[in-house]
Amino acid sequence: MSNTKHYRKGDEKPVFPNDGIYQLYSMRFCPYVARIHLVLDSKNIPYHTVNIHLNDKPDWLFEANPLGKVPALQLVDKPNAPFVYESLLIAEYLDEVHPQNKLYPSDPLAKLQEKIWIERFSSIASKFYNIVDGVAQWNAIQNDLDEFERELQRRGTTYFGGAKAGILDYAIWPWFQRTEVLDVIFGKGCTFSEERFPKLTKWYKTLVENDDAVKKYNFPKEAYVKYYQSRCAGAVDYDVLVQ
Amino acid sequence: MSNTKHYRKGDEKPVFPNDGIYQLYSMRFCPYVARIHLVLDSKNIPYHTVNIHLNDKPDWLFEANPLGKVPALQLVDKPNAPFVYESLLIAEYLDEVHPQNKLYPSDPLAKLQEKIWIERFSSIASKFYNIVDGVAQWNAIQNDLDEFERELQRRGTTYFGGAKAGILDYAIWPWFQRTEVLDVIFGKGCTFSEERFPKLTKWYKTLVENDDAVKKYNFPKEAYVKYYQSRCAGAVDYDVLVQ
Repeated sequence: MSNTKHYRKGDEKPVFPNDGIYQLYSMRFCPYVARIHLVLDSKNIPYHTVNIHLNDKPDWLFEANPLGKVPALQLVDKPNAPFVYESLLIAEYLDEVHPQNKLYPSDPLAKLQEKIWIERFSSIASKFYNIVDGVAQWNAIQNDLDEFERELQRRGTTYFGGAKAGILDYAIWPWFQRTEVLDVIFGKGCTFSEERFPKLTKWYKTLVENDDAVKKYNFPKEAYVKYYQSRCAGAVDYDVLVQ
Repeated sequence: MSNTKHYRKGDEKPVFPNDGIYQLYSMRFCPYVARIHLVLDSKNIPYHTVNIHLNDKPDWLFEANPLGKVPALQLVDKPNAPFVYESLLIAEYLDEVHPQNKLYPSDPLAKLQEKIWIERFSSIASKFYNIVDGVAQWNAIQNDLDEFERELQRRGTTYFGGAKAGILDYAIWPWFQRTEVLDVIFGKGCTFSEERFPKLTKWYKTLVENDDAVKKYNFPKEAYVKYYQSRCAGAVDYDVLVQ
């Protein structure tokens, strides 16, 4: 269950049963951690979630990741239960050691090419932050997305990964989730148009409706709007999904 | 041979013999491409070098890498001779398909941890660019380098890779090469001090004096100074090493 409260400075570090299950340091709305939730869930790997208040970080977060960022994953099944971080590096590791529902291609060149596509997406992801001119940023993102539309067209498959979601699908989906709330992020009139992105529109819809990992991670757009508006107002509320 | 002229806009794309040998798009002073030179040379993999004038790029560079950056590597041994790019992704691919002189650990967790160390270095690398306050930036770099000094101390080995250089050594060495010319980059008084970094100082010296790949790639610091000063003067001369 990922809809738990976000721990702040001064909060005691949560204690979990000695069950050998991974511990994922997360933030419910962070697209980078979302990648790890999707990878873990798509492989049915159980894990405990420790949500972190990123604006008021508990000291013990820095034991998990000296950079104070999420995701950080504690491999409690290994000697000394080491922490690892960096979303794409964790994802590749998990795919290697948990080969069920393989997400990366096994051919080295195909794997490299898929990783290059993910790396290319990072310039899109970065345009979702530090928003100065929302409309210009969304226009720039759309120009970059044209490449992904063409690539999906070229592949001719339902998912980038083929007949089922692969690592490229999961690595980029968290930012597509934000296409539901573009007006809130980038300003009025910003839309993800089916006319310009027919393949990506269908791909996104298929993931949301049919992919079990995405369905498990996803949340109502109203929750995102509430979170995002609280962030813009300077009093971020990470716990909008906590019952 | 990497000391060849840098191709500019309007220059014809060089033609190589149909010999099945990789073609590396490079720039002689680029630390990111240096990683690939070191990986290829450490494995005795032959390759042709195509040096690129990054301030006046030939159009055909964008066929190699749509982002117009180096390194780009053409795998002429594969069907349709695809180009690949992103230095760390290329390095990992090369290590996978050319297992001689293995550079990455084979254990998945050890490999992940080494990749995390490389990723951590990226914040150091970025401080070598867009220099506004050189002294402050060098001080910040030194604070980050303390972690690497401690880690090398902790490992107790000659190289990060152990008794021989591994991927972490090659991935970060190109920026240590610049410790020879800190005064030029960051300003007078900036030094890489043996007192503060005893392990790293010895490590760097050992690589320069004993590692064949580093010896092959390395160049006199005077050449770097000449290149760097031409860059700062707004008339970059990439060809200072061309005979």
